[in-house]
Amino acid sequence: MTPIDAYRDLEVRFKRLNVLGEALSVLHWDAAVMMPPGGAEARGEQLATLRVLCHDMTTDPKVGDLLNVAEGADLNDWQTANLREMQRAFRKASAIPQSLVSALSKAGSACEHAWRDARRDSDFAAVLPLLQDVVDLTLQRGEILAETLDLTLYDALMDDFEPGASADRISAIFDEYAAFLPEFLDAVLEKQRAAGPKPTVEGPFPVDRQKALAERLSATVGFDFDAGRMDESAHPFSTGYAGDRRITVSYDEADPAFALMAALHETGHALYEQNLPPDWRGQPVGDARGMAIHESQSLLIEMQACRSPEFISYVAPLMRDTFGPQPAFEDAALERLYHWVEPDFIRVEADEVTYPAHVILRFRLERALLSGDLPLADLPAAWNEGMRGLLGVTPPEDRVGCLQDIHWYDGAFGYFPTYTLGAMTAAQLFKAAAAADSTILPGIAKGDFAPLRGWLRENVHRHASSLSSDEIVERATGRPLDPSAFQTHLRQRYLGN
Amino acid sequence: MTPIDAYRDLEVRFKRLNVLGEALSVLHWDAAVMMPPGGAEARGEQLATLRVLCHDMTTDPKVGDLLNVAEGADLNDWQTANLREMQRAFRKASAIPQSLVSALSKAGSACEHAWRDARRDSDFAAVLPLLQDVVDLTLQRGEILAETLDLTLYDALMDDFEPGASADRISAIFDEYAAFLPEFLDAVLEKQRAAGPKPTVEGPFPVDRQKALAERLSATVGFDFDAGRMDESAHPFSTGYAGDRRITVSYDEADPAFALMAALHETGHALYEQNLPPDWRGQPVGDARGMAIHESQSLLIEMQACRSPEFISYVAPLMRDTFGPQPAFEDAALERLYHWVEPDFIRVEADEVTYPAHVILRFRLERALLSGDLPLADLPAAWNEGMRGLLGVTPPEDRVGCLQDIHWYDGAFGYFPTYTLGAMTAAQLFKAAAAADSTILPGIAKGDFAPLRGWLRENVHRHASSLSSDEIVERATGRPLDPSAFQTHLRQRYLGN
Repeated sequence: MTPIDAYRDLEVRFKRLNVLGEALSVLHWDAAVMMPPGGAEARGEQLATLRVLCHDMTTDPKVGDLLNVAEGADLNDWQTANLREMQRAFRKASAIPQSLVSALSKAGSACEHAWRDARRDSDFAAVLPLLQDVVDLTLQRGEILAETLDLTLYDALMDDFEPGASADRISAIFDEYAAFLPEFLDAVLEKQRAAGPKPTVEGPFPVDRQKALAERLSATVGFDFDAGRMDESAHPFSTGYAGDRRITVSYDEADPAFALMAALHETGHALYEQNLPPDWRGQPVGDARGMAIHESQSLLIEMQACRSPEFISYVAPLMRDTFGPQPAFEDAALERLYHWVEPDFIRVEADEVTYPAHVILRFRLERALLSGDLPLADLPAAWNEGMRGLLGVTPPEDRVGCLQDIHWYDGAFGYFPTYTLGAMTAAQLFKAAAAADSTILPGIAKGDFAPLRGWLRENVHRHASSLSSDEIVERATGRPLDPSAFQTHLRQRYLGN
Repeated sequence: MTPIDAYRDLEVRFKRLNVLGEALSVLHWDAAVMMPPGGAEARGEQLATLRVLCHDMTTDPKVGDLLNVAEGADLNDWQTANLREMQRAFRKASAIPQSLVSALSKAGSACEHAWRDARRDSDFAAVLPLLQDVVDLTLQRGEILAETLDLTLYDALMDDFEPGASADRISAIFDEYAAFLPEFLDAVLEKQRAAGPKPTVEGPFPVDRQKALAERLSATVGFDFDAGRMDESAHPFSTGYAGDRRITVSYDEADPAFALMAALHETGHALYEQNLPPDWRGQPVGDARGMAIHESQSLLIEMQACRSPEFISYVAPLMRDTFGPQPAFEDAALERLYHWVEPDFIRVEADEVTYPAHVILRFRLERALLSGDLPLADLPAAWNEGMRGLLGVTPPEDRVGCLQDIHWYDGAFGYFPTYTLGAMTAAQLFKAAAAADSTILPGIAKGDFAPLRGWLRENVHRHASSLSSDEIVERATGRPLDPSAFQTHLRQRYLGN
């Protein structure tokens, strides 16, 4: 077999893997949005069976042989990047014994299941032994991956979500933000207080009207409803693939902002996926780069574009038309509402100023848990102490403290930093976009997102996984990730300087 | 490996196949009910990839070896039946070369796609060459299956849908019905005419109210909404598995009867699947027996139980409550409406008296097409002549003639007879049920279907595929399928004798 034939064979195999991954995403979506409770057990079997098939296909020794032969092929840049992604997938999957994959999957399921009750009851002790299993197995997996990828254990775990991420660099970025935050937050809160109380919205806001407006705004930003759907689920998410993106939103009758911003956030994710290069669809190099770039796309739409004064001036009349006029929907009041800053316990409800503090806390704690510096039993106390130190608030119970997020209980360690890397990348990208194309901001004020979409497609989306996250950011903005852009953005938006 | 170990290994393999079949059913449902148009191409790839995987797993030579070894195992009745069904699946799948499977799948897709336009344009010539491909490939497959199963070609094709079905026996049953029909139909139409005009319903009937009533009645019959859903699609169908049944209905604002009866029909299918023995879930012997028994369960609920005077007396007040009172919803008028007989062109809209004529026509024509007695180009003329002979009506165009049904264009030959075998089986089963348990009919009059469900579970559902269709009917009613029960039912309902 010639090297190029080996490469072509690999393309066929990875395409088939991708097709099964698509099927898995539909089954996941259905479980969250459509499935009746009686279907849970069978769905679990379906997902597990397909995952085992995918693992078996990825780790087929024949794939290893083909990868070796394909090394000698004369490939163009994209093919070279594709082969690199294939090698990464093969090496990672082959390194982990099937018994460990299966043990982690079972431990994660059991722990996540128990976590739901533990969170409800605010009872960390009840889930501790199961979480300890998850941590122990994650350490086993992390050690193997660290050796395979020649990375530290934590960097190896982050590689699942954000290839190339370095805990040392993130640590420096986060420390800088933690140092910046206290004084900045005080200034923001003082300015906010001086301007009067938080505008109050007078509901209820019927879900069907919220839904109609959410769909309209999502379409305005660029979501293609002929190639996607928007539905309702307990927590907003987006999944699917080019041609069939699935966004979900959750509605609160008392507050229309949550659903609207969730819809815009998920639309940002969807735009990225919809604009990935069609020629590479189904190949590893054609996938989205990683979760930091992905989150930068959702936050660029939600936080940068759709909380900009330009967009608020566009959306405020639509809010008044949809729900009837009220003081909170006047342009200035709506802007105050969408820029409201308030240190609190819950990450998913946090504003963009305090959100990084939630992430920094989790990043520090999960590294300490994995290094052994923090025994799991001490997590609740360490959590509360961290919250006091970073935001000056103390969770009254673990339900709104260390039990609030599913990630660890479901086995996802190394994921949290991508939220804040995404927020910082979004600020840097949006600034570069607005500077490069002077029609972008005026377009947003008119509900015309075509210029912004064009810039994102050209500078971010079309690269898929052919470049690293750093390369994408550097080509788009002239420099690698620079957290000062985020601080500049916050100063401008919240202090006006 | 001992024989019993071989059998156990086969159980694991067929369980995995079943799990993938479940995943396929969710993907099919989603395509019909949820998927945006942009998802069609990717979904086609997903379905094809999973089908190829299932075919490869079924025809794995190791399965053949295990089947040979397992022959010597000491098995109980159900295990023996399970092994028999495994052997049947393996022999059939292994006999057909992958190239023919793939060619038939592609030809069916292309033809079905062209058929949609051809039907719209009433242009049979436009789809004829593609249909010829389907017929030719079906003949190739049929010849292989006939030799493998030692059956005639047509019986071998029917084996996909109704194992054990014999065209000779069906032919005799259908000829008898065709002989019975003309005089009976004249008498019914004369009696119907004498009683006055058809009651007219005054709409529109809002879809949300139709939906609420359809869900209520479906739950009344026994559909478990914690283990299933009811949604909307272009054509009603049901799919899924125990724990997660999916029913779909289509709504017509001008006529609530169609959606209600469709919901009850699909509920009959769902009850069968929901009541299959849980101990055998995922094994071939645990599957529903075949399409004739399946259709008997939907028609027993729709035609026997839910068009009975007892049920109409129960549902009429609900119709009046739901849509407001009107003359057509008085008990007697509603009964006339639900028993209205009218020879017409369209099978799916036919009443239960003329429905078999539509099936008999298709059965005769598809046998003639496959035997070569009827050249495909002569199909439209033969169709129209057959309709004139059986029902005295001539379709004005092929759109409402030989182009009306998807089956042949999609490659399904040998399916049609199961509709009428199901209707006849339903009449025989329902009569036996009402005779065996005197609380069944009074229960239906009160909306209490528990006695009927109990009888069906005990006498039909729990057997799954452990018995043949004939054995199921014989044990439940004391004799094999006897079409006279259907004629007796029609005489009683439509002539009152």
